[in-house]
Amino acid sequence: MRVLVIGAAGMLGQKLVERLARDGALGQMPISSMSLVDIVPTPPVRPCPFDVDAMQLDVAQPGVARELLARRPDVIFDLAAVVSGEAEADLEKGYRVNLDGTRALFDAVRAVDGEYRPRVVFSSSVAVFGPPFAEVIGDDHPTTPATSYGTQKAIAELLLSDYTRRGFLDGVGVRLPTICVRPGKANLAASGFFSNIIREPLHGAQAVLPVGPEVRHWFASPRSAVQFLVHAATLDSQALGHQRSLTMPGVSATVAMEIEALRRVAGDAAVSLISSQPDEAIARIVDGWPRAFDARRAHGLGFRAEQDFDQIIHVYIEDELGGGLNT
Amino acid sequence: MRVLVIGAAGMLGQKLVERLARDGALGQMPISSMSLVDIVPTPPVRPCPFDVDAMQLDVAQPGVARELLARRPDVIFDLAAVVSGEAEADLEKGYRVNLDGTRALFDAVRAVDGEYRPRVVFSSSVAVFGPPFAEVIGDDHPTTPATSYGTQKAIAELLLSDYTRRGFLDGVGVRLPTICVRPGKANLAASGFFSNIIREPLHGAQAVLPVGPEVRHWFASPRSAVQFLVHAATLDSQALGHQRSLTMPGVSATVAMEIEALRRVAGDAAVSLISSQPDEAIARIVDGWPRAFDARRAHGLGFRAEQDFDQIIHVYIEDELGGGLNT
Repeated sequence: MRVLVIGAAGMLGQKLVERLARDGALGQMPISSMSLVDIVPTPPVRPCPFDVDAMQLDVAQPGVARELLARRPDVIFDLAAVVSGEAEADLEKGYRVNLDGTRALFDAVRAVDGEYRPRVVFSSSVAVFGPPFAEVIGDDHPTTPATSYGTQKAIAELLLSDYTRRGFLDGVGVRLPTICVRPGKANLAASGFFSNIIREPLHGAQAVLPVGPEVRHWFASPRSAVQFLVHAATLDSQALGHQRSLTMPGVSATVAMEIEALRRVAGDAAVSLISSQPDEAIARIVDGWPRAFDARRAHGLGFRAEQDFDQIIHVYIEDELGGGLNT
Repeated sequence: MRVLVIGAAGMLGQKLVERLARDGALGQMPISSMSLVDIVPTPPVRPCPFDVDAMQLDVAQPGVARELLARRPDVIFDLAAVVSGEAEADLEKGYRVNLDGTRALFDAVRAVDGEYRPRVVFSSSVAVFGPPFAEVIGDDHPTTPATSYGTQKAIAELLLSDYTRRGFLDGVGVRLPTICVRPGKANLAASGFFSNIIREPLHGAQAVLPVGPEVRHWFASPRSAVQFLVHAATLDSQALGHQRSLTMPGVSATVAMEIEALRRVAGDAAVSLISSQPDEAIARIVDGWPRAFDARRAHGLGFRAEQDFDQIIHVYIEDELGGGLNT
């Protein structure tokens, strides 16, 4: 099985590549080769039982997508995206990468002669949904995004379904929850604090909380997100019918629930490192975000996330801290 | 007020132009000039109190949309489209006209310097909805189209909402019902029979009915469709919020209801000209179409259609037959 990962240098891309290198397979199928693509250099991959090549390319550039398909990958992970804040700040860049890049990939697949019909796993987002929100958002909620990023993802979902229906590719779109706990440095994105208030105290560092404890949002760990992608690459897509994008399962938690989970896992000392500094601008942005989903369809197809926020913290400790706390 | 009509040579475009020429105004605002654009020549316009110019151009070609905005139209009617059957048969043409052409127009508006923010009335379609259908489809039904045409319209609706939210234009999308009774020759489109079985008998000609009497669908007259466009151009768009496309009101009628309305209006002799010739292929296509909508949002904003199918037939007789039957 030949695998192509577009957006391989991002946080999720790196974790997916690491997982595939470790497994040596995708589901039951051994991987024979893997191509990694990103607009920035991809970090080196651990020794693994298959060939890996890495390319620094922009899929939105003419001809690039066609070139990437020269080896006829059986599975394509399309993770490349300009994130929400940047797509809002730079309209043209957002549309160029998130819409034109995705469409260029789908059109390049369509242009391949013969029976070629790869599985395309597309990383979408719950940003395809916009207010007014139900308290719990079902699978039949309309996609009326409130941001340019969400608009671009919703458009790509429509293309994915239409190109699948027309028989050009076999698409599965996964609408990812907010990934938490994100590894790495404290993030300035509006959603960054959800991770910061867990990660920083686990490292013995201070964290700032810009919103109130009642704020509720929708989370899954990086490990679950990678598992969503792997499952989307291997499931029997017949069961999806024409609607090829799925809201992924996750954990609905308030900030207060995050903090109490942190207390259970790492004690009062960790919690005391969180300081409240209300930020009206962030509070307003977060107020426009969904709080919980009923991801029944994905659940029925075998997608699984954590059960509670304690598990999400334990995944961070296992995957990023070698299983133990440094404090 | 300067008006631009893109797709002015189509059935709906011609009727809109005729209405605006007759009124000399759009709502309370006198029209000072009107530009007509289509890829085919537009028919001559009746004498009217404002300047009319007509251009044969393809909006999807580079630079054309920018050229059309040179006179800074206050209202743009975007009616240009490759229809459903053709968009399904010719994927590239459908995406080029229905997606790229629309996007080129929106981007050209965005590129204009200064305070320019025209009202853009976009003709969408109930084809943005796909099965499974509720018996009556509400305004919060998700847009999961089952055709490439519906996909392209759903994408254009997303762009319209995003570009409006970003302040580049003031968009209103109208999801038109199936237009009935269509004037002109019997139409080979899958939906053609809904009009044929009324129009042909009113002209004393035979008509073929390819489906059963129980088939139900969603209709409005050409006159109502023009009124939807005019109302969309003049309403206070603040009331729309971020979701800028609206399912238009219409009449939900079965084929049997159509036939009984024809009998009331034109007698048994007219009905006897309809002959049943079941066509499995057409029946299958029509089976994937919506049957009725609860167009509450549009109704609340002042959009009005006919009350029943008798009215739809009377509109045809008034507008196409000079008010009287030829039989």
